[in-house]
Amino acid sequence: MIKGFSKFSKTEKVNWLAENFFRDKSLGIDTLKQYYNEDVKLQQLHDEFIENTISNFYIPYAIAPNFLINGKTFAIPMAIEESSVVAAASLTAKFWSTRGGFKTEVISTTKIGQVHFTYKGSKDELLDYFSSVKKDLIRSTDHITANMRKRGGGIVDVELRDRTEDLDEYYQLHVSFQTGDSMGANFINSCLETIAATFQKEGIFIVMSILSNYVPDCLVRAEVRCKVEDLFPENAERDARKFVQAVQIAEVEPFRAVTHNKGIMNGIDAVVLATGNDFRAVAAGAHAYASRGGKYKSLTGASIVDGSFNFWIEIPMALGTVGGLTRLHPLAKLSMEILQNPTASELMQIVAVAGLAQNFAALKALTTTGIQQGHMKMHLMNILNQLEANVHEKELIVDVFKRKTVSHSAVAEYLHQIRTGH
Amino acid sequence: MIKGFSKFSKTEKVNWLAENFFRDKSLGIDTLKQYYNEDVKLQQLHDEFIENTISNFYIPYAIAPNFLINGKTFAIPMAIEESSVVAAASLTAKFWSTRGGFKTEVISTTKIGQVHFTYKGSKDELLDYFSSVKKDLIRSTDHITANMRKRGGGIVDVELRDRTEDLDEYYQLHVSFQTGDSMGANFINSCLETIAATFQKEGIFIVMSILSNYVPDCLVRAEVRCKVEDLFPENAERDARKFVQAVQIAEVEPFRAVTHNKGIMNGIDAVVLATGNDFRAVAAGAHAYASRGGKYKSLTGASIVDGSFNFWIEIPMALGTVGGLTRLHPLAKLSMEILQNPTASELMQIVAVAGLAQNFAALKALTTTGIQQGHMKMHLMNILNQLEANVHEKELIVDVFKRKTVSHSAVAEYLHQIRTGH
Repeated sequence: MIKGFSKFSKTEKVNWLAENFFRDKSLGIDTLKQYYNEDVKLQQLHDEFIENTISNFYIPYAIAPNFLINGKTFAIPMAIEESSVVAAASLTAKFWSTRGGFKTEVISTTKIGQVHFTYKGSKDELLDYFSSVKKDLIRSTDHITANMRKRGGGIVDVELRDRTEDLDEYYQLHVSFQTGDSMGANFINSCLETIAATFQKEGIFIVMSILSNYVPDCLVRAEVRCKVEDLFPENAERDARKFVQAVQIAEVEPFRAVTHNKGIMNGIDAVVLATGNDFRAVAAGAHAYASRGGKYKSLTGASIVDGSFNFWIEIPMALGTVGGLTRLHPLAKLSMEILQNPTASELMQIVAVAGLAQNFAALKALTTTGIQQGHMKMHLMNILNQLEANVHEKELIVDVFKRKTVSHSAVAEYLHQIRTGH
Repeated sequence: MIKGFSKFSKTEKVNWLAENFFRDKSLGIDTLKQYYNEDVKLQQLHDEFIENTISNFYIPYAIAPNFLINGKTFAIPMAIEESSVVAAASLTAKFWSTRGGFKTEVISTTKIGQVHFTYKGSKDELLDYFSSVKKDLIRSTDHITANMRKRGGGIVDVELRDRTEDLDEYYQLHVSFQTGDSMGANFINSCLETIAATFQKEGIFIVMSILSNYVPDCLVRAEVRCKVEDLFPENAERDARKFVQAVQIAEVEPFRAVTHNKGIMNGIDAVVLATGNDFRAVAAGAHAYASRGGKYKSLTGASIVDGSFNFWIEIPMALGTVGGLTRLHPLAKLSMEILQNPTASELMQIVAVAGLAQNFAALKALTTTGIQQGHMKMHLMNILNQLEANVHEKELIVDVFKRKTVSHSAVAEYLHQIRTGH
């Protein structure tokens, strides 16, 4: 046990780690330090994002070009460690760019926060009290909401909800917000805590005040459509039906739906992270939305109607293009520039497209060649690096495996052959 | 639209971006390049993790010390951009280290994959066919499973499942696996594709073969417990009841449950990422598990029984300590060393603890001081960096806001006062 660790300097923290956990102390320390940025001020900025920072964890930052969205072309920045995600995004973007591109719309942008409380007295009295103070509750936040109101946002409504059937004495103030181009977490929480402090009556006990990351009314839709015969080169009808069937399976089978949506989140989280937004919040809201009907299911839908193939996603997400790290992390800021400085609503649409594109690529591969062929090709370089192949060996093996199935053991065996000559 | 982008060199990619999207070309290029590692070989390793890499996205890599788990002390590495997560983890670790620490157990480690197919003929014939080839299906994967079987893993069972009530003609081969210390995605997918290729009969059409990230039988439990009076300094009974109430609310109210679980995933994803595992997979499985009863609810539970406060989490997750990036990303590898080179089962337990700790910190803050006080204190440095405060200004303001509520506008105002003298 160590006391006062958070007060240690970065060097002291690293030395303590080395002393206690590294088998080879100087090697461990060097591993951490090789990732330090030589620009001291830039490094300090990154260190100060959180607490007890001892190094920078690299996530590959990459570009998927050629996304045609509502007639406008985008290159989408993605921060993701998983191979094949960016390749899949790029291929799908190109594919749809010659078939009308992606069409998107923001359906709604309302966010939710709640003051959770218990009340022992009569419900009528509580309702009367709520009616009498509702305006005051909103007014009590005026100093917090002033700037947001200037930008067209603020508190939309405060409702009293009776939840005593679910839990003894449990009620809520259910508050809806518009937060403009900010994700709004701090804004919403500050408003809620102020409202809770104003909502005082004998018998009311506040349990907690907190925003919700479940945002079913902050919803975006993206879709693609084309003639069935333009979708697949041969057997278009059969392959399109199989694609739709794969989506239907994800609607009825949670074991499939989870991986189906996981693939969607590969695309979504990568853009969310690259723009300095909070992927845990987006993921939690999206997966809960997938289960809203009582059964966890696909976030995308597909149909064939009158010879037209249609594929779409509807997904809730709360994003910001100002606030948080969005302008503070230099690469998040650059991501915004690459995305042509979108509003929060525009960013929602781009992110939804990245999710839909990822799902399209996965389903197309799964229902035709299988997932492993493409995936293992992408993973080949990782295997080669793990086996410490040199440049010459890499070239030889990449060439060989253009015509062979990649597996860890097959690559290892081939490398062994090259090295030993038999 | 750009052709052949993936074939461009990194420099060509960056130049194309600058040409098309950067307002200040050289500034944009410098921003990307300031994150390049000067060790060319190391940079190449990171570039090759995925496709179209143009820079390294920094996520702060930090340490939360003093976790006592089953009597053994751990310092937990976390990769996370959100302030207060590591601070909350550290405080909670210290708190429980004097109250017996965390107790954990792995309940199960079975993973699932499925071959989805349609069949037009009679069900009895299909069953007969399946019974006759079941052993062959498993045998067909022998060359893939050989190494895994040596390590005690492999295919556990193959079941035929009739899903025609949900979707016309829809059946599955539902395959269960043990994958030892690897997460097993490539292993499972390769087995499934081989099984699908073996499962051939007139009328059977394979739709797709793919692992599931839903792993309800790859389950870990972590818990803490202490006397109620040891939990809170004053009003222990009342505050403990309020804490339990907050968990109960997350059991009945999805709007709360989503944020409750999002907080858990702050801790979990941070360790998953720091160890080179796939946080999209873990998040998808965990959130789907939260909805398994038909309603999305809390992943943690809390109770007070006979004066004892009990708080626990049960969460499914598929993790690896070998394979993927776990040993290939130098910091992921170092994370494993810091965690004393755990098995996959041990890592599941550590990750579950990180999730439980995060939820404990959030609920403790929410039900006592409110979330904003601590959170905004942590966020203060980000605000100061955004406002480009210098070292002297930072010191002054951090000192002042020890006794004041932090908000962006309050900090901006105070900084303005310092700078203008009024």
